[in-house]
Amino acid sequence: MHNFAVSLDGFATGDEQSLEAPFGHAGGRLMGWFMGTRAFRSMNGKDGGSEGIDNAYAAGWGPGIGAEIMGRNKFGPQRGPWENEEWQGWWGDNPPFHTPVFVLTHHPRPTLELKGGNTFHFIDATPAEALAQAREAAGGLDVRIGGGPETVRQFLAADLIDYLHVVLVPIVLGRGVRLWDGLESLEDRFTIESATSPSGVTHVTFTR
Amino acid sequence: MHNFAVSLDGFATGDEQSLEAPFGHAGGRLMGWFMGTRAFRSMNGKDGGSEGIDNAYAAGWGPGIGAEIMGRNKFGPQRGPWENEEWQGWWGDNPPFHTPVFVLTHHPRPTLELKGGNTFHFIDATPAEALAQAREAAGGLDVRIGGGPETVRQFLAADLIDYLHVVLVPIVLGRGVRLWDGLESLEDRFTIESATSPSGVTHVTFTR
Repeated sequence: MHNFAVSLDGFATGDEQSLEAPFGHAGGRLMGWFMGTRAFRSMNGKDGGSEGIDNAYAAGWGPGIGAEIMGRNKFGPQRGPWENEEWQGWWGDNPPFHTPVFVLTHHPRPTLELKGGNTFHFIDATPAEALAQAREAAGGLDVRIGGGPETVRQFLAADLIDYLHVVLVPIVLGRGVRLWDGLESLEDRFTIESATSPSGVTHVTFTR
Repeated sequence: MHNFAVSLDGFATGDEQSLEAPFGHAGGRLMGWFMGTRAFRSMNGKDGGSEGIDNAYAAGWGPGIGAEIMGRNKFGPQRGPWENEEWQGWWGDNPPFHTPVFVLTHHPRPTLELKGGNTFHFIDATPAEALAQAREAAGGLDVRIGGGPETVRQFLAADLIDYLHVVLVPIVLGRGVRLWDGLESLEDRFTIESATSPSGVTHVTFTR
């Protein structure tokens, strides 16, 4: 799991997620450092952008990844049974993943194939089961846990994450979904390194 | 307010404070970076210690401060009415403050005079009233808000803090007393700078 932003008060997304606000009231504040990087801009066909430490981490988002697992709340703002299958995620007809994507949901729906190798599988599975499926699909490459916070927290609780890169953003969100709940003494399982960027965020890596 | 440590999940002290455990189950984990500095060791008559960024911040703890305000939970583990006045704080007969100290409590008791200019006044006052008294006593020097987290939070909520130095410690405490609750968008009132230490902690300063 990497490039996952968290506020000082531990929220990884804001309150009131909606079609217009994937991160709720947090808006663009959690991922501003990412949007400004050369790596992100080039993913969107744009020139320029920062080339320092934020970019070094952001550039690691894609290479070596063969599948992503995400929670249903990252895929979209809907809750409960799908009213229809029109929603295809936030990312248009050619999402940035370019791998199989496993969406954890208690409400499976047919596999969705979009351009660029983006195949979304909707599965009702435990973290361990989902990881086994994603590993199979990844063909020897790594599996990215893509978020949101509830999904990441479940994978950390099940001790299924080997590399965790969290970006501490110096803002106080006040409300939203917390990342760290139920993970007391998480640090005991990892070696931790921190590095601050001139942008103001701090990159914290948990490795083992 | 400075040299105030907070965990990744926003706790500035642990659960279960007791006579033997001023920081509760957090033990020495929040202040380990501080204890290792030359500044802290010399306050305790010891040689050696780190001399890098952690020490640079730790060394700013004393100079220029003319009074401290602390909450009653920083002064001791007792709650409610004092059973007696035997408790004189955690710091022995010559505490490190060497200034007047104002202890916020709903249960005032007589002023306590210890060695080294350490005079503890127990007052039942609002943050603004306490600050006015401490300013008067500080004789033109600065007033330190010493903690604990509930006290700091009240002063931040009342917008009475001009300089906030928080130390992010990469641990997940899971329980205790949170610093950031009720302070949504605190960052809007300050200019923020972050700097990571090789010890693993990140110093975040809020100035204005």
